[in-house]
Formats: sequence, structure tokens, C-alpha cells
Amino acid sequence: MPRGASTVGLRLSGLCFLLQILLIILFAAFARYSPESSSSSCSQQLNCSQRNQDLGFRDPRFRGVHLQALLGFGLLVAFLSRYGPGSVATSILLVAFSIQWGVLIQGFLYSFPNGKIQVGAQSMVRADFCTAAVLISTGAALGRVNPLQRLLLALLGVTLFSLNEYVLLSLMGVSDSGGSLTVHTFGAYFGLMVSRILHQPHVDKREEQQDMGHQPNIFAVVGTISLWIFWPSFTSATTVGDTGEPWAALNTYFSLAASTLATFILSPVLYEESTLRMVQLQDAALAGVAVMGMAGEMLVTPFGALSAGFLAGLIPPLGFRFLTPFLRSRLKIQDTCGVHNVHGLPGILGSLLGTLLVALATADAYGARLELVFPLVAQGSRTIADQALCHLSALPITLLLATLGGSLTG
Amino acid sequence: MPRGASTVGLRLSGLCFLLQILLIILFAAFARYSPESSSSSCSQQLNCSQRNQDLGFRDPRFRGVHLQALLGFGLLVAFLSRYGPGSVATSILLVAFSIQWGVLIQGFLYSFPNGKIQVGAQSMVRADFCTAAVLISTGAALGRVNPLQRLLLALLGVTLFSLNEYVLLSLMGVSDSGGSLTVHTFGAYFGLMVSRILHQPHVDKREEQQDMGHQPNIFAVVGTISLWIFWPSFTSATTVGDTGEPWAALNTYFSLAASTLATFILSPVLYEESTLRMVQLQDAALAGVAVMGMAGEMLVTPFGALSAGFLAGLIPPLGFRFLTPFLRSRLKIQDTCGVHNVHGLPGILGSLLGTLLVALATADAYGARLELVFPLVAQGSRTIADQALCHLSALPITLLLATLGGSLTG
Amino acid sequence: MPRGASTVGLRLSGLCFLLQILLIILFAAFARYSPESSSSSCSQQLNCSQRNQDLGFRDPRFRGVHLQALLGFGLLVAFLSRYGPGSVATSILLVAFSIQWGVLIQGFLYSFPNGKIQVGAQSMVRADFCTAAVLISTGAALGRVNPLQRLLLALLGVTLFSLNEYVLLSLMGVSDSGGSLTVHTFGAYFGLMVSRILHQPHVDKREEQQDMGHQPNIFAVVGTISLWIFWPSFTSATTVGDTGEPWAALNTYFSLAASTLATFILSPVLYEESTLRMVQLQDAALAGVAVMGMAGEMLVTPFGALSAGFLAGLIPPLGFRFLTPFLRSRLKIQDTCGVHNVHGLPGILGSLLGTLLVALATADAYGARLELVFPLVAQGSRTIADQALCHLSALPITLLLATLGGSLTG
Repeated sequence: MPRGASTVGLRLSGLCFLLQILLIILFAAFARYSPESSSSSCSQQLNCSQRNQDLGFRDPRFRGVHLQALLGFGLLVAFLSRYGPGSVATSILLVAFSIQWGVLIQGFLYSFPNGKIQVGAQSMVRADFCTAAVLISTGAALGRVNPLQRLLLALLGVTLFSLNEYVLLSLMGVSDSGGSLTVHTFGAYFGLMVSRILHQPHVDKREEQQDMGHQPNIFAVVGTISLWIFWPSFTSATTVGDTGEPWAALNTYFSLAASTLATFILSPVLYEESTLRMVQLQDAALAGVAVMGMAGEMLVTPFGALSAGFLAGLIPPLGFRFLTPFLRSRLKIQDTCGVHNVHGLPGILGSLLGTLLVALATADAYGARLELVFPLVAQGSRTIADQALCHLSALPITLLLATLGGSLTG
Repeated sequence: MPRGASTVGLRLSGLCFLLQILLIILFAAFARYSPESSSSSCSQQLNCSQRNQDLGFRDPRFRGVHLQALLGFGLLVAFLSRYGPGSVATSILLVAFSIQWGVLIQGFLYSFPNGKIQVGAQSMVRADFCTAAVLISTGAALGRVNPLQRLLLALLGVTLFSLNEYVLLSLMGVSDSGGSLTVHTFGAYFGLMVSRILHQPHVDKREEQQDMGHQPNIFAVVGTISLWIFWPSFTSATTVGDTGEPWAALNTYFSLAASTLATFILSPVLYEESTLRMVQLQDAALAGVAVMGMAGEMLVTPFGALSAGFLAGLIPPLGFRFLTPFLRSRLKIQDTCGVHNVHGLPGILGSLLGTLLVALATADAYGARLELVFPLVAQGSRTIADQALCHLSALPITLLLATLGGSLTG
Repeated sequence: MPRGASTVGLRLSGLCFLLQILLIILFAAFARYSPESSSSSCSQQLNCSQRNQDLGFRDPRFRGVHLQALLGFGLLVAFLSRYGPGSVATSILLVAFSIQWGVLIQGFLYSFPNGKIQVGAQSMVRADFCTAAVLISTGAALGRVNPLQRLLLALLGVTLFSLNEYVLLSLMGVSDSGGSLTVHTFGAYFGLMVSRILHQPHVDKREEQQDMGHQPNIFAVVGTISLWIFWPSFTSATTVGDTGEPWAALNTYFSLAASTLATFILSPVLYEESTLRMVQLQDAALAGVAVMGMAGEMLVTPFGALSAGFLAGLIPPLGFRFLTPFLRSRLKIQDTCGVHNVHGLPGILGSLLGTLLVALATADAYGARLELVFPLVAQGSRTIADQALCHLSALPITLLLATLGGSLTG
């Protein structure tokens, strides 16, 4: 129906207009650039003014801002290519909206007390994570929601995501630099619940056939490559201190490599086809990074990263073969993009692994890194066991928030 | 005519040969690597030798060179994908030639007095900007010029662009870090005048139909994504001092997001189609960055960037609907790629906004940043009003040079 | 034969399983993260502890790790797009395996004495180079080896590549930052010998036709652009000291630009077609960077880079026209991807140029850079003539190892 489609288009146009005007007003009222965005690195140091004078404008933090922006959007490309092929334009609309909205919401949560939101490079990075979670969520419901509904879903998803992240990171002191829990698990289960509520038995077949075409193949190649290029650096860009960085990046590389091989092992056994579809490789790569989200900065040997990546790489092929049909027929959850296999389960596995690693952490193995990875433990205000308990309880909290939020949104 | 095409090919081959030999001779005669390219950051500091010894080879400037190169070519990809799809090979030839020629010309203008051109990382970045302007210009005349003519157009375009940039930045002290005026406005009007002179009434239809095909769609996706990833960092990479960087990058992000939403608002109203074409999103993104070129480092709140981006995002859809047909029928200017809507008008809007911001600038709002954004004002050698006048007069000068140059070239 | 294909798939699955388990066991036994990976920059400095305290976590080395990872994988994309289009999935399997295997082998060669392999960001960069050489090798034999054989070829190729690199760089003190010899020449001749041994007269035609399709064109565009964006920065990222960086990057840019123009000059003369195929431009770009691999950090003027790039750009078109048919008919070497023209010959030219430059090097021309480019010469333990001899003898050693290894592998 061209007429119906056009009505949706006009309504979408109106909603965009309202939201954008609202955003502009809110930004005008509350948002200010952070004065420390350019000198945030020395806010807690005493000899700061002298330092700045000394180093002049050659402070590496400034370069870091560029790199983070670069990596952050590289990350979104990886998600876009998986959840967007059929509807790139709408996905870009979602990105454009979620980033603005994410900056606002996170600003209200983290830096509102002084009456104004401080906007800096960090807010942008957090908004990137937000947007990634929203893209995962809408991926689960793709084909059952029109652009208008996707925009409303983004509106609520960003709000709940920020709330969940705030509870986990700020209130409970959980460290989840790569977003195993906050991005992957939350995004997947939020989207699955929305998909469950919006269940319509008739429309699911068509979308999937569209997925097999020529163009998604190219998008899958681009997405897989973006993941390999951008993700490891991005994961480590948000780690607490800078000395933790190389390990997180290297762990993620090893996990990616192992999960790719795992897919090559399982696929010929499970499917009849002799050649692998690129989408499967992309799924393997996503599972490989999802599992490293929390544990990435905690693993002390490459061996651990290889094993975890290998296990994570086994999940998507098994899940698509056995779990997705079960979900569809019994629980009436239509998981268009296989979000549960690619993000949900590896995310849970990753957070369990993270919890295990926290429980096993000793001051010996970490040395000076202890202070960076677990600042609260190093300060003595919390024992290793308490920290592990926090990590463990973060999982059900995230699941609860995601399912409740998804039901309400649906 | 395969015979005619082959003759053009041979002539192009001969011209390339002549130009490349000429370039090699000129480079051999004049160009030397800048000895300070590795230590340029301390040329105006006294305690420089001691500093270098102190910091050793961990000076972030070196990393910066990599990053700038990366970003500079990312920028060219964004332009290539818009102006190149039908003729990527020729466009890459243009890039390869313009970069060499740009380094030479800009070297003659900026660092010739000592008899030798100093070539460093900065020259490469400036040559990137040159090349971007040339790609815009040839975009306006696409479909009416053969590769040979495009190469000659690049030869003259680079020369005039460098002259204009030299007049504006060095002689008049205008700050235009993102190239609102120098790149977008100059490139657009130069190309439009060439297109006007070369007007042939018969050949315009075919090119446009070719534009709708399958491949350009992928290119538009790649181009839009490259813009989002690379441009904000690039704009801020060329700002005067480093403390200005985060603001310019963040302003550009907000402008991009707002202009994307603006396109989603207007398109369903103006066109009957319910789905948005990716090219429109790319146009919106380009307009969003064009408007931030000059004002990016001057805006103090995200609110301003959102509003300006929103307005800029409205220009391309309106322009394509109402202005392009008018230009074609009345002024006989065929604007193959819609250069006027995407670069010309947003560039003018951006430079007017920049002028306004300069006029409103106070030492209070900028604080320590004043010295970085407007060094002449901070030094007391010029008042705010004078600076605003300079910015205002830069616009007609650019327009004059572009139209005159374009006419001569045509 | 779907049955045969499926058997290959199952065997590949089994081999992947075995190799991955083996890798996990080896990593568990030997690999440890390098404790200095986060502070490697001060291992040879005395006032190191005080420095670290001083600079805090703002040490640019940490950023450098991100950037290197980014560039390293960008480099692999450039190769993937050339050698992978017909079989991206298998190529990504090769990348995933070669990186793990490369980290192990290089660890055994360089840092085994203490019983454990030290894994850090540097190992990852070296493994990237390894993987690039393997992709070149398999490119020569593409269409004659199935995925199983490619994996075995990678297994042996990585081992021999690491051995060759170890002999050249560590034992002989040759400086080859961009891999003219180690990556391009070794990869090309290793692959050619394998291709010679596996010669089957019937199967060569089909693959080539497949190469002309629609998708490879897009891949060639992506590959060419990746080369332009990532390679120059990557070449210079591995130079000995950081002050050498800008020159290596700039030299590579000039070489790229000149080789692109060279292709535009020769192609219309040699071929009847009036339009250039993107693949030819990609070949020119690859030849342009191959020739700059060794000489990149030694050239003192842009003139040299332009001339060398120009000569290198002439090789691929001439080679494809005259040399490849000769190789195929006389020597029965089927060079599916033209590896000999694109990597082999330019690599040899590059290493000869490097030798010449070493022989002509004087302390005057290099100044303080001498110590960085040729540390042994600067320390007085070796004369310029000895160093040149080393570089000269490195070429036949590489050729010998490559052909012997290729024959054995075949």
C-alpha cells in the first residue's frame, strides 16, 4: 500500500520533528561543554597546573579523543552492517537519534547535580555504547516493527540501558569495560522481550528470505572486518587505567581468532553446505567479542582468551541449529537476527567468566594492575569475595531490567 | 566510438606522462623534507632542546602524523564515494595527481622564501583539503567533461584553491579549520561556473539515470559512514591549538546527527517515496559538516551545533526540489551531483554563522581558548569587530575568485 | 560433487579442530603476556621509574598500541580484498589461524630463552606481517588448492617466513621496515614455487573468468582505498625510531601517487580498452608500496620516492602483458593473481634500491637519523660497505629460502 507507507512516512517525519525540537530545547537548557574535557586528565592531581604548562599542547589525551571517536563509530558500523542491511537508512536515523538522546540521559544520570550536563568526549563514547545496545535490540524485532516503532523503541531502550548501566557501574562498582553485560546481554534480552510481546504469527518468513540476498553478503564482509579492526582497540579504550589496555586488546584478538576457527569446525558438521556463509563468520566474531567484554581486562594469559573465544564461537552455530527453532515454536519469540545466540548467550557466558575471574583474582597475579582493574578492592574498602558477589548479582539484575523493560515497551 | 575513446585514452596517457615527468623534475629541483617535520612542535619554544631530550621518542606529535594521514585519506574516501561511483578510476587519478601538485603549489606559497619547499606532514594534510575541493568541483561538471578535461580542471583548480586559501588564511587571518569557505564554497562555485561555461543541452539526462543504479547505493552507504567516522576528527585535527579539538569534533557530531534527522523530516513531505535513498542521507551528512567547517571551533554549546546542523540538513532536500530545476532551466547550469545544494549553500551558511559567532565573541565566553581560536585578537593587534569584518569579507572574495577562476577554466 | 565438497568440509573441520586444540595447548604451556608490554619504552633508560611516575598514564605508547592494531588489520584488509574475493571466508580462516600461529612461532624465535614466550603488541604486529605474506603466497596458487591445502600451506608458510625474517633482521642486521624483501619478495616466490609444483594444466581458465565479475570490482575499490589509507602509516609504524616516521610515510604516499599515474600512462598503450579496471589501480598501488618497503625510511628527498614509485608502477602492466604469458607457457607456473608482477618484481626492485641507498649513505645526509636507521653503523661496529653487502646478500638468501620452501611445501 503506497498510501499506507506514505502515511507512516509522514508520521515518522512528524515524530522526528518533535523529537529533534525537544532535543534542541533540552540541550539548550541543560548541556554545556565540559570545561575539563581538555584537561580532565589532571583533575585529581595536585601539580596539575605546572604539568600542563610543562607539556604544553602535546598532551596525548587530545589525540586520544580523536581515536576514541574513530573507534566508537567503527564499532557502530559493525553493528549497522549486521542489523541494518535491509534498512540502512532507518538504522542511521536510529544512530543519529540515539546518540543525542544517550548524551542527554547519561548526562542527567552522571553529572546532573550541578544543574548542567557536562558534555565531553567521554559522553560521546558512552552514547556509542548505548546506540550499539539499541541496534541489537531492534535487530531482534526486525521485520515486525516499522520505522516509527523502532524510533520509539530506541527512545525507551536508551533510557533503560542508561539506567541499568548506571546501577551496575556506578552504584555496584562492577567493571564491564567491553559491555558483556550492559551492551550485549541487556540489548539481546530487551529486544527479545519486545519481540515476544509484538508476536504476530504471519510475518516472519518474508524477512528471512530477504536476508539471503547479495547485498547482505557484502555488508557481512564489511561488518566482520570492522569488528576485527575496531573492536579490540575500542574495548581497551574504555578500560579504567591505561596500563590495562594492551591486555584487553590482545585478549580480544585471541578470542576473535579462536571463535572464527570454532565456527569453521562446527558448521560443516551441523549444516550440509560445504561453504561457509559470511554471516556465520560475523556471528562468530560478535560472539567472540561479547565473551571478552567483561573478562578482557582481567585475563592474565592468552590461553584463557583462546579457550573462552573457542567456546563462544561454538555457541552461534549450535544456537541457530537447535535453540532458535525451539524459541520460535515453544516460546513464540521470533528472533529475526539470532540476537539470542550471538549476543545473549555469549554475553552471559562472558559475565560468568568475568565473575569467576574476579573470584580467583589475587593480588599476586595482578600486581600493580589490581588498582586499575578493581580500584575498590585495592583501596581495601571491599574484599575479593564481595567484588565477585557484586559481579554475580549484576547478571540477574540486568536480565530482570531487560525483560521488565522489554515487556513494558512492547 | 571505441576509436574515439581510445584516442582520448592515448592523449590522457601522454598528458599523464608529461605531468608526472614535470612533477618529478619540480620536486627534484625544489622539494626537501622539512628538517623540523619531526620536531616542529618546539620551534617557538625556548627550552626545546632540553624538552626533546626529556621526552625522548615518546612525543605524541609522531603518532599524530599517522592519525592525520589516516583521517585525511578517510576524508577523501567520503568524497570519492560521492563524486566517483561512475568513474572511480579517474577520480583516483585525480587524487594521485592533485596531491602531488597541491604539495608543490602550497609549498611555493607558504615556504618558498628560502629557495626550497619544505615538505612535511602538514603539507600532506593541506594537499588533502585541496584534493577534496577538486573532487567537489569536478562533481559539478561530471558527465560533461572527459578524463582529460578533468585532469586539466584539477591542474587549475588546485592552483586557484591554494591561492584563495593563502589569501584567506595567511593574509587576512581568517580561521576556517574545517574549510566551510575554502573547501566547500570555493569548490562548489568553481565547479558550477565551469559547468555553466561548458553547457551542452543534450547530455544531461543519461548521467542521472546511471546514478540510480545498484552500486552507487553501496558507495553512498560507505561514504556516509566514512563521513561519520572520519570527518569530526579531521576537522578538529587542523584546529589552531590542541585544546580546541574536542569541541570542534563534538560540534561536528551533533551537527551530523541533527542534519540526518532534518532529512528524515523533510523528505516524506517533499517526495512521494516512503523510503529514503541513502544518497539523501549522505547529502545531509555533507551539509551538516559543511556548515560546521568554520564555526566548529567557535561554538561554545552543543545547542548551537544542533540548531545549525538542523538548518543545514534542511537545505539539500529543499534545494534539490526547488533550486536545481530553476538553475537548470533559467541559468543553464547543470549541477550533476547537486553540488550547489550540498556544498555551496551550507558552506555559505556556515561562513555566515562563523562571522556571527566572531562578532559575538567575548573574552569571557572563550577564556583561555581565545588565544587559540583568534590569536590576532588575543594579542591585541586586532579587535573583535575587525576580525568579524575579515570573516565577512572573506565570503565575497572566495565567491569572486571561484566564479572568475571557473569562467577562465571553462 | 556436493558429496566430495562435503568431505572436504568435514576434513577441514577436523583439521581446524586439531590445530586449534594444539594452539590452545601450546599457548597454555608457553605464552605469557609480556610484563613490559605496558612499559617497554623505558627498558633501556635509567631514569625510567621517575619518568613513569612523572608522565602518569598519559604515555603515548599506550595510544600507539591501538593505532598499530588498527593499522595492522587495515593492512590485512588490503590483502584480503585482493586475494580473497572469490573465497573471503577461507581467507578469514587463514588470517585467524596465521595470527595465532605467527605469534607462537615468532615468540619461539625471538623471546624463547627464558622458557616462556612474551606476547605483547609487537608480536601482534609481526604476526600481521606474517599473515600478509601468507595471503600473497596463497594468492599465487588460488584456484589450484582447496581450503584444506591452503591451511596447510599457511602452516608451513608462516614457519618459513618467520625463519627468513629472523635470519635477515636479527642475525644479519638488515633493516626492512616495510617488508620489501621479507613480505613481498618472500611471499611471491614461495607462492610461485608451490604453484609450479602443483601444476595442473586444466583448471586455470575458470578462476580467471570468475575474477572479472561484479563483486571483485567493489573489493578492488575497497582494497585500493585501504592501501592508500592504512599502508603509509603502517610502514612507518615499524621503523626503528620515531623520528624516522614522517619520512617513511611521506615517501610511501609519493610512491603511491606516482605509481598510480604510471599505470594510467602505460595501460592505454598496452591494452585496447579505453577505461582502466580498478584491479589495475590496486596492482599499481601494491607495487608502489612494495618498492618503498625497504627504502622508505632511507630516502632523503621526495624526488627519489616519486621516481621509484613511477618505475614500480610501470612493472605490473608490462608484466601482465609480456611476462605472465611467458611464465605460463614456458615455466608452467600459473600465477593466478599475478603475484610475480605485483609483489615479486617490485619487491626485488625495492630491495636493490635499498641496497643502493645504503651504499650511498653518508653520515652527513642522515645526521641524527643515522643512528635510528642503521644502528650498527652508527655504533661503529660495521662500515657502510659491510651494511650494503648485508643488504645485497639478503636478496639471494630470501629467494633461496622461498624457492626451497615452496618446493618442499608443494
